[in-house]
Amino acid sequence: MEMWFSDEHTDNVKLSIRVDKQLFSAQSEFQRIDVLESKEFGKILVADGDLMLTEKDEFIYHEMMAHVPMAVHPKVENVLVIGGGDGGCVRELAKYNTIQKIDVVEVDPLLVEVCRKYFPQIASSLDDDRVTIYNEDGLRFVRSRSNVYDLILIDSPNPFGPAEGLFTKEFYGNCYNALHEDGIMINQHESPFYTEEAFQCQRMHKRIIESFPISKIYQAHIPSYPSGHWLFGFASKKYHPLNDLDGVSWNLRGIHTKYYLPRVHHGVFALPAYVEELVKDVE
Amino acid sequence: MEMWFSDEHTDNVKLSIRVDKQLFSAQSEFQRIDVLESKEFGKILVADGDLMLTEKDEFIYHEMMAHVPMAVHPKVENVLVIGGGDGGCVRELAKYNTIQKIDVVEVDPLLVEVCRKYFPQIASSLDDDRVTIYNEDGLRFVRSRSNVYDLILIDSPNPFGPAEGLFTKEFYGNCYNALHEDGIMINQHESPFYTEEAFQCQRMHKRIIESFPISKIYQAHIPSYPSGHWLFGFASKKYHPLNDLDGVSWNLRGIHTKYYLPRVHHGVFALPAYVEELVKDVE
Repeated sequence: MEMWFSDEHTDNVKLSIRVDKQLFSAQSEFQRIDVLESKEFGKILVADGDLMLTEKDEFIYHEMMAHVPMAVHPKVENVLVIGGGDGGCVRELAKYNTIQKIDVVEVDPLLVEVCRKYFPQIASSLDDDRVTIYNEDGLRFVRSRSNVYDLILIDSPNPFGPAEGLFTKEFYGNCYNALHEDGIMINQHESPFYTEEAFQCQRMHKRIIESFPISKIYQAHIPSYPSGHWLFGFASKKYHPLNDLDGVSWNLRGIHTKYYLPRVHHGVFALPAYVEELVKDVE
Repeated sequence: MEMWFSDEHTDNVKLSIRVDKQLFSAQSEFQRIDVLESKEFGKILVADGDLMLTEKDEFIYHEMMAHVPMAVHPKVENVLVIGGGDGGCVRELAKYNTIQKIDVVEVDPLLVEVCRKYFPQIASSLDDDRVTIYNEDGLRFVRSRSNVYDLILIDSPNPFGPAEGLFTKEFYGNCYNALHEDGIMINQHESPFYTEEAFQCQRMHKRIIESFPISKIYQAHIPSYPSGHWLFGFASKKYHPLNDLDGVSWNLRGIHTKYYLPRVHHGVFALPAYVEELVKDVE
């Protein structure tokens, strides 16, 4: 039997992956969740038809969300992850014994349940003693917190549909308030390549620089995501992502990674000319 | 009407692009050549069913082939481009008025003809006075040259089928001999992500380090190529790709680029941990 899952990158481009089996499918209160088994990418998590993560390359996204700020901020104790019910960001954060508390705000409890069952190597660190999961709306959760966190990771899906509120100026402002005076906020920042996503990139960046004094963009190669060229936002009240990098201390922690290294840290902030131009246009 | 072109990245993964029109299709002595018109990527050149280049992102590949060595080698006068009948590498090289001679060895004259007609913004610099096109086999051409070139760009398709000879140890050794004592060789180096291509990467790197004292790998985000994470090889007799970078001089040339900048030069050599490991395995 031939079975293919297609992830629409734009109306005119799609990435298709041969699927062996559909392991799970259900509609939660918030979204349709599917788990597919594939030869090339291992298990694939799909939400409302969009590829969320694959076993083969999820490490790239999650490492780049967590380790970039952790190698810059000298003392992260309290972390907030918004979205991220799959546990990938938490798995990376849990590698730091200096972190004392990780709050995860995942609106959809079914997503957490499905990941615990089908992606235990990603979700198992959600059982870490330091983790508290809140099944609440991220926007509302952040609004009620002030001066609490050293680091916020916005592990949101794309800016259409239910997560739309996580891409507003108000939300970024609330994240600013929820952070300590030397806090850092990281967000997934879409891709710069296709026109519509490039526009989202610009809009996000513009909104973030209105709240944070330091706001830089960095990149990674994530093959299963649209265009494979994925961006992240580093927004910060005090620390500069390059000038305040402490690669030596990071290396001394002995954390094992497959993508991130302090050696690549500078490189991921060196954006190609056309991406730099896109970003500068709104600064 | 719905028409989609699918580029097979592996047996289990394909990238599909919506096509408006098939503008050209013919079988040459060497390969089937197609030109497709698409909304998302503009015109697309296809050889034997494989995507060769698209109007939207060809600049990334061609800039990264040409400018990385040109920003390192202080005096390039004679260049050899093997393959590259589309003219993309030549277009970038032609921006340097210090280059005196560019030999292009493209085995298939139909490919050149098709690119001149359908991709004039890529192929037109093939008319530059400094360019000579040889419709010969690249392997044989290089074998007969000794101590002639400052720079060789191996702009070959993948290592299966007719171009297989351009991926052998003998070929790299002949390129070494065709170069001056401070010459540089650049080759497209496949992607590190999918298993089969990662293996090709390793094999190529192993063969190149047997000939060249300096051999480093660098990367770019090329969305239309398999996995979008594309590698290039920098093999050199004398100059080191980072220690001998002269970004100031390069900037003073006033060359306009959309991807390459000396600012990104160091970053593209900072390979992610898993790619570095892949490469180190064969060193």
